[in-house]
Amino acid sequence: MEKEIYLDNSATTKALPEVLETVTEMMTKNYGNPSSPHRMGLAAEQVVRQARQSVAEIIGAKPEEIFFCSGGTEANNWAIQGTIRQRRSKPSHIITSQVEHPSVLKTCQVLEQQGYQVTFLPVNPMGIVDPGDVEKAITPDTVLVSLMHVNNETGAIQPIPEVGEILRQHPNVVFHVDGVQSFGKLPLDIHRSGVHLFSVSGHKIHGPKGIGALYVRAGTRLTPLLWGGEQEGNLRAGTENVPGIAGLGTAAAIAGRHMADFSKVVGELRNSFKAKILARLDRVKVNSPMDSLGAPHILNLSFEGIKAEVLLRMLQDRGIFVSTGSACHSRRNRASHVLSALGLRKKHLEGALRFSFSLLNTEAEISLAAETVAEAVAELRSF
Amino acid sequence: MEKEIYLDNSATTKALPEVLETVTEMMTKNYGNPSSPHRMGLAAEQVVRQARQSVAEIIGAKPEEIFFCSGGTEANNWAIQGTIRQRRSKPSHIITSQVEHPSVLKTCQVLEQQGYQVTFLPVNPMGIVDPGDVEKAITPDTVLVSLMHVNNETGAIQPIPEVGEILRQHPNVVFHVDGVQSFGKLPLDIHRSGVHLFSVSGHKIHGPKGIGALYVRAGTRLTPLLWGGEQEGNLRAGTENVPGIAGLGTAAAIAGRHMADFSKVVGELRNSFKAKILARLDRVKVNSPMDSLGAPHILNLSFEGIKAEVLLRMLQDRGIFVSTGSACHSRRNRASHVLSALGLRKKHLEGALRFSFSLLNTEAEISLAAETVAEAVAELRSF
Repeated sequence: MEKEIYLDNSATTKALPEVLETVTEMMTKNYGNPSSPHRMGLAAEQVVRQARQSVAEIIGAKPEEIFFCSGGTEANNWAIQGTIRQRRSKPSHIITSQVEHPSVLKTCQVLEQQGYQVTFLPVNPMGIVDPGDVEKAITPDTVLVSLMHVNNETGAIQPIPEVGEILRQHPNVVFHVDGVQSFGKLPLDIHRSGVHLFSVSGHKIHGPKGIGALYVRAGTRLTPLLWGGEQEGNLRAGTENVPGIAGLGTAAAIAGRHMADFSKVVGELRNSFKAKILARLDRVKVNSPMDSLGAPHILNLSFEGIKAEVLLRMLQDRGIFVSTGSACHSRRNRASHVLSALGLRKKHLEGALRFSFSLLNTEAEISLAAETVAEAVAELRSF
Repeated sequence: MEKEIYLDNSATTKALPEVLETVTEMMTKNYGNPSSPHRMGLAAEQVVRQARQSVAEIIGAKPEEIFFCSGGTEANNWAIQGTIRQRRSKPSHIITSQVEHPSVLKTCQVLEQQGYQVTFLPVNPMGIVDPGDVEKAITPDTVLVSLMHVNNETGAIQPIPEVGEILRQHPNVVFHVDGVQSFGKLPLDIHRSGVHLFSVSGHKIHGPKGIGALYVRAGTRLTPLLWGGEQEGNLRAGTENVPGIAGLGTAAAIAGRHMADFSKVVGELRNSFKAKILARLDRVKVNSPMDSLGAPHILNLSFEGIKAEVLLRMLQDRGIFVSTGSACHSRRNRASHVLSALGLRKKHLEGALRFSFSLLNTEAEISLAAETVAEAVAELRSF
């Protein structure tokens, strides 16, 4: 079988060997329950503490502001549900955008059905929210603004510091940022940004699946989603997933060492891929911002005259793995809510594929993949 | 260093080599996102399907009744919160017991603070709920009965089939069973037992930490706790923890093969341990039911005249790892709520240790451990 080229790194990434090593060690030698009051428990607890430090460092947080949970979806649900339940006594209003991940969007839609007020802000054709729109949407009942840092389908970067600056004038409003696609990739000084809650996922940065974290700024009041034991400072019950936490710690530490280079190295892969595609094909629409408004690892392209699902299958048969938009609803052939919010026309919605890159991809892979994509599109168009 | 003897298997267990192998394979070769619409995603999805089958078989459920989540605590929270939120329109009443795991007890306490009615049933001196008490507690507002199968501190087995039989007369009441300490150890025919929801944890059966499952009987209405992507039949969002799920599947398959022997083999270890201790020490109270009312892997003993924390530390220094009651709150030197509910006197509360066994323990370990415990207790008493 020919070489496989994995360009679906926004769906999930391959675990690094160092991460696997950490997980293995925690599953075999250091398998104690951190809450057990003996040496094996204490050893496990120390590993958890070290991982908390590694995650905190990436965003300039204090370790005690990091709370481990089962992943990005739990972190987003916890941030939103936990904030809303904290303020049950009065009518509450949430501000979010039309391009959020389903774990934010759907949670907000459910709350809306339950009688909460929700504003779903529009985005510009590059997929970016206008901070002025956030400001205008604020009412005396607003308790939460939830925006993603990097969009998972297009890579569009939301103006987090600008929104944070606006929210400084509204100290009762909690600012939640879904950082799943940016954590360990784009620098963010969490204390300066005005963010209160920030969601992190392990498996998007070559860490384990089933582990994530929520940054909770000191002093931010948040109701637990899971009640029970006194783990995670009484905020998230359940025996700690020590191998997962340790693996996330390892992945974060490694991502931290590469973060300064990430935009350059991965951005060059993306730019090279895009240039090669555009050089060989016409009628290709670039749906991702390519300048400083777009994250370096995500490239969303619409191939006119092509059904994305057909192209995707053809590419898979040639060893190249990509997605149509988000993995979270890509099994149904619905139009992407993100691309729809960008105002894309039907032909561009139908022919949209997401290529997502990582530091494990090579320039040789990118060249081969671009060539294969161009050939496949040309073949499909010639039918 | 001398050999370590791990007798804290109700807190957590060591992963089996086969489980580690499965996890490793899913983290390296088969790392796709099951929701990704390409071959790597489908391969991951097939692994998840196989694991669902293995978990279902243990309790005689259908695979489509098994929903993976992050562990026993999430399963318990989901079962309770999800049932309550399903019935928001009318006043709701919950029946549970005083000896539940914190993830059930605290969730119910929080709901009580929010205005729900909760009955916390007492237990007899063996830690067992009277099914007649359940029947008497039922009101027209009762929506949920939540009882554990096996108590995590004493091993007491609750009369699940008897309660299930009573609840057949009350078809609007959902029956949730926390099966974390019994799954894969004690047989239970879930369809016959009248149970609607059953919680499972991976790391209590030599599977991975951070993974669990909730059995949801077909037709049982349950609101999700985590909203987002369409994973797990739209009931539990979030990228599937494929290595965790696969590892749980492997652990369940192996546990299933040993389940018929578990009570005999592990029960003999427990009985042997108890006999050796009682032969060498007086003033020892057995807090676990030793007959068919007690699970074979848990033995709770009170050593009169001893502070359990001191004995625990002494044992750890001699390579033997045990717990004082539940790991979930054992860091605080509070009296166990379970042993308190049994009506234990102060001297028995203070001197209570939990020894919990697994199929990985040997008779040689048990002999050495019993001898060491007897010596340590004698030493402490002689001071």
